[in-house]
Amino acid sequence: MTQRLFHDPPRLPRGFRCAAVHCGIKPTGRDLALFASEVPGAAAGVFTRSLFPGAPVVVGRELIRAGRLQAIVVNSKVSNVGTGTEGLRRARRMGAAAGRALGIAPELVLMSSTGVIGVPLPIERIEAAAEGLVVALQDDPLVGAEGMMTTDTHPKALSLSIENAVLTVVAKGSGMIEPNMATMLCYVLTDAELDAPALDGALRRVVDDTLNMVSVDSDTSTSDTCVVIANGRAGPVALDAFERALHAALTRTAEILARDGEGATRLLRVTVQSAGNRLEARRIAKSLVNSPLVKTMVYGGDPNVGRILMAVGKCIECGVDPTRLVARLGPITVFRDGTLTEFDESGARALLGGDPVDLAVDLGVGQGEARAWGCDLTPGYIAENAAYFSS
Amino acid sequence: MTQRLFHDPPRLPRGFRCAAVHCGIKPTGRDLALFASEVPGAAAGVFTRSLFPGAPVVVGRELIRAGRLQAIVVNSKVSNVGTGTEGLRRARRMGAAAGRALGIAPELVLMSSTGVIGVPLPIERIEAAAEGLVVALQDDPLVGAEGMMTTDTHPKALSLSIENAVLTVVAKGSGMIEPNMATMLCYVLTDAELDAPALDGALRRVVDDTLNMVSVDSDTSTSDTCVVIANGRAGPVALDAFERALHAALTRTAEILARDGEGATRLLRVTVQSAGNRLEARRIAKSLVNSPLVKTMVYGGDPNVGRILMAVGKCIECGVDPTRLVARLGPITVFRDGTLTEFDESGARALLGGDPVDLAVDLGVGQGEARAWGCDLTPGYIAENAAYFSS
Repeated sequence: MTQRLFHDPPRLPRGFRCAAVHCGIKPTGRDLALFASEVPGAAAGVFTRSLFPGAPVVVGRELIRAGRLQAIVVNSKVSNVGTGTEGLRRARRMGAAAGRALGIAPELVLMSSTGVIGVPLPIERIEAAAEGLVVALQDDPLVGAEGMMTTDTHPKALSLSIENAVLTVVAKGSGMIEPNMATMLCYVLTDAELDAPALDGALRRVVDDTLNMVSVDSDTSTSDTCVVIANGRAGPVALDAFERALHAALTRTAEILARDGEGATRLLRVTVQSAGNRLEARRIAKSLVNSPLVKTMVYGGDPNVGRILMAVGKCIECGVDPTRLVARLGPITVFRDGTLTEFDESGARALLGGDPVDLAVDLGVGQGEARAWGCDLTPGYIAENAAYFSS
Repeated sequence: MTQRLFHDPPRLPRGFRCAAVHCGIKPTGRDLALFASEVPGAAAGVFTRSLFPGAPVVVGRELIRAGRLQAIVVNSKVSNVGTGTEGLRRARRMGAAAGRALGIAPELVLMSSTGVIGVPLPIERIEAAAEGLVVALQDDPLVGAEGMMTTDTHPKALSLSIENAVLTVVAKGSGMIEPNMATMLCYVLTDAELDAPALDGALRRVVDDTLNMVSVDSDTSTSDTCVVIANGRAGPVALDAFERALHAALTRTAEILARDGEGATRLLRVTVQSAGNRLEARRIAKSLVNSPLVKTMVYGGDPNVGRILMAVGKCIECGVDPTRLVARLGPITVFRDGTLTEFDESGARALLGGDPVDLAVDLGVGQGEARAWGCDLTPGYIAENAAYFSS
């Protein structure tokens, strides 16, 4: 699927609306968002595998078991992680406040929080803002996306059509991003009619190859959540067509999230082919997008391509034969037959200075394939993260 | 063992001398070093587990099998990695040139190279400089250490006494440093009398807890080499005394290397206690020293200590119970009973601004312990690595 299939501007599916307001957790700007369907929908979700999950993740796992949701309420700036049993109570109060304002049962409302770890959630501000949030419901998904931004430089939403239905993704990044079985905050809303088990299967398969292959900085968040709600207003859609559309949408979401990684100036795409198996391909692709030396090479536009070999070589549990490996930067073959080629250095410099930067490694040992998305490592990443708590 | 046991300034053991000259691989500065004993010694070594080992590592593994070495020759700026069979020939020519100049057999000379990957080794310059290198042999280990520096900000050598003998470590860092079963370039020279199997056992045990627990940037070098030569001139030494001294010396070397990590402004020391087992303790300690968000927190002196929980939580294969975990920054307990404590923020800020920064995590689930060394992540790391190839 190509970019032209995406709606520009993105839109919400039938029966969904969203809103974002300033409730006072951030000093200024929208910090509380709501996504709501006019009727309950089938739902599925995946969450962080972190052993320190945030309170909304603990509660979210309970809620998603029913396979039914109607709304999602999310705040930014404070993540409600490391907050003990009081944190769990406040997460439930957050969902209940949104449910009351919408006039629906609290168990139909998923809540998410993103931001600093360990700070108590200012639940009174959220409760006080809930009515106004419902009044503000409107049709532009970018407005809702704005309410959940932390260090994202822009709100993230996209949509595409599946037959008669629409699938919309609303997401935020942009540091502490190496999802594991789930992702950052990412909500998939659709008016397609699908049951919860079908949604769950499609979501898990697609997330594994898309959002789970994104890494900004190798750090896995305590709040990662990816939830899909299908309200059925557009009628039934074939599951394979839905899954293909979901794959296209979350692939593009992965690229958008990686390109807007904290401090990033460009997207790094890594393709691994002919690895011993799929798991080894995934591991090697992740090693490349996570290597600080590969990431700074991309930032500097400096063709120190031997670092590609280093990042492959450190995957010591994988099958690698240096004499068979071929490495490419865009269309330029930089390593083959056990040695660096005499590649065109100015051409390589130009490719490293472009966006996206494509690295490909062919291991020549098996059938395993993987793709991963990352970004360069820049002084901006350090500036943002050296004072995140205080700022 | 404490710092006062180390000689100041460091010295070489009896019968060892070293030299460093400028042979023309770098534009200026010493780029070729030699460490030589007046008699052959027992020897042992450990090397990188990278699947892309440099030519000197491949040849070095062959040489060390004999358990006997008399000299080490090492160049900086070009690592002779990714250079195919011609690279292997040049590594052998490098050892042979030093052997000829010393008047000893080539198989008694280990060679190392450190620097850019994929560039042919300028072997003629090394061969032309070998005679002058032998003429320059002298007694200060820091002179030899200077000849193998890449982005190190200072030459690294230390020594201490074991009974009647001396143990000297000469090492270089300082990026692409997360050794695996071995380390950066690190040479241990001693006049103690020990046989090669005893040396090998002690070296492997000690390296596992010291150099293998250092990480500057999570990237494993293709050139990591740690070799010990014992020339016996001081007579026999008890193996346990030798091993204790080696442990003290390589612990200190680990700290020195981490503190001088590329761009680093301070040493980060992580202690993990009461983990499920030793492997889990090691994995959690490494996760903490490698987390970009922990490292930037240290750089910024910003007490966003929830990131400690994140870095523990992402070790999903380890036994972690958030309600049992206690986390400390120096003497300050920052997390206990499932929540962040109301810790003294200005005190935490002061500790994060000091050097070293000590983080400790007590998991409360078992007996596993580990210590790891790292450093902060700074704009200096990015500046050095965005243009390393070109500069």
